[in-house]
Amino acid sequence: MEQINLSIDCLVLGYSDDQKLKALLIKKIINKDNDLQYALPGDLVGYNEDLNTASKRILKNLTSLSDVFLKQFYTFGHPNRTKHKKDQDWLNIYRKRPKERVVTIGYMALVKMEDYKPGPSSFAFEVEWVSIDNVPKNMAFDHNIILNKGIEFLRNQMNNEFISNLLPRKFTLSQLQNLHEIILNQKLDKRNFRKNILKVENIKRTEERQEGVPHKPAFLYQFSKN
Amino acid sequence: MEQINLSIDCLVLGYSDDQKLKALLIKKIINKDNDLQYALPGDLVGYNEDLNTASKRILKNLTSLSDVFLKQFYTFGHPNRTKHKKDQDWLNIYRKRPKERVVTIGYMALVKMEDYKPGPSSFAFEVEWVSIDNVPKNMAFDHNIILNKGIEFLRNQMNNEFISNLLPRKFTLSQLQNLHEIILNQKLDKRNFRKNILKVENIKRTEERQEGVPHKPAFLYQFSKN
Repeated sequence: MEQINLSIDCLVLGYSDDQKLKALLIKKIINKDNDLQYALPGDLVGYNEDLNTASKRILKNLTSLSDVFLKQFYTFGHPNRTKHKKDQDWLNIYRKRPKERVVTIGYMALVKMEDYKPGPSSFAFEVEWVSIDNVPKNMAFDHNIILNKGIEFLRNQMNNEFISNLLPRKFTLSQLQNLHEIILNQKLDKRNFRKNILKVENIKRTEERQEGVPHKPAFLYQFSKN
Repeated sequence: MEQINLSIDCLVLGYSDDQKLKALLIKKIINKDNDLQYALPGDLVGYNEDLNTASKRILKNLTSLSDVFLKQFYTFGHPNRTKHKKDQDWLNIYRKRPKERVVTIGYMALVKMEDYKPGPSSFAFEVEWVSIDNVPKNMAFDHNIILNKGIEFLRNQMNNEFISNLLPRKFTLSQLQNLHEIILNQKLDKRNFRKNILKVENIKRTEERQEGVPHKPAFLYQFSKN
């Protein structure tokens, strides 16, 4: 019988100490030669499973991450999105009905990298943080399209609720500006950024300064609670 | 066999001459007594059908609207979203497997009301523009939840590309402010609004003034092309 299967793919983003936005990818063994393929962590939704519940289960199973900011952003349903040769090999090994159509719901997880140590499990042979500039172009299925759509979604949600999940609890204004620049993909004027960000975002200066820098350590800031 | 069915529901919004944001609802006959129920126009996705293609087909079939701004905004998948008594009656008449789970993808259509005259067809007994303040609380399935999520989505997308689809081609600044107020659900200061909107939005004044008002007709504005 012709049937549409439903899956969830998770785009996990983190902001690293070296000021790069990184995606958490899994490596899958796709054939008997043990060839590896990069993919977003994803899996099928259970028949009685709520979508948000499924997204948490899948993320945990494949990356060992839990209790993170996780939001649905877009659903991908091209009829041929799993039909490419490179993907059919893997599906033939792992799926009962590899030829059937799969519609996938994209979820975005935003992670303070300082808090989480992801680890591999299930069919994820390895997990790896990859800078979004260096993501391999030939990920599984349409995962490159999902990643790009996710970045676009994040750009449109450029606000407190979202970006506070990417920054360390206390951060410098340089870190904040760099994160904005990465997501918006454009350079921002330092003076204007500092002047305006303090007006529009709910940020306050702490009495602490950054550590481990040779001179003029910058003040640390944090998001206010309300 | 247990199977997840996939459907699309369309939240069609228009902005009317009387300055209200309205949703286009269909009325469905849900039982042999010809009782009517309000619903968003929606239907199942075909096995080989692309999601965007399906959304256009469904909107056209149920409301006769075509060539409108139509964007996916969120996917709804509570396992019991079609299991309520009120919905099972209708499903029993129209669906082969009424008990099966249905996950639905929400699409938003934004319509210049001056341009379109929707009409009923397929299983939509009637179509009706209903002010979003007066939408019946007991629409089919989870359609009230879908509507609320759609308004929230629109609020977050408050920009040119989106709201230009709701306004007439030429509009007054009062109309523009009123539309902002409805979507944001808050009153805005007139002077600040006028000052700031002309900075951030790509709007220019035409040489025309509104017609049919007793005195001091306001200038009409339009969105610039670039």
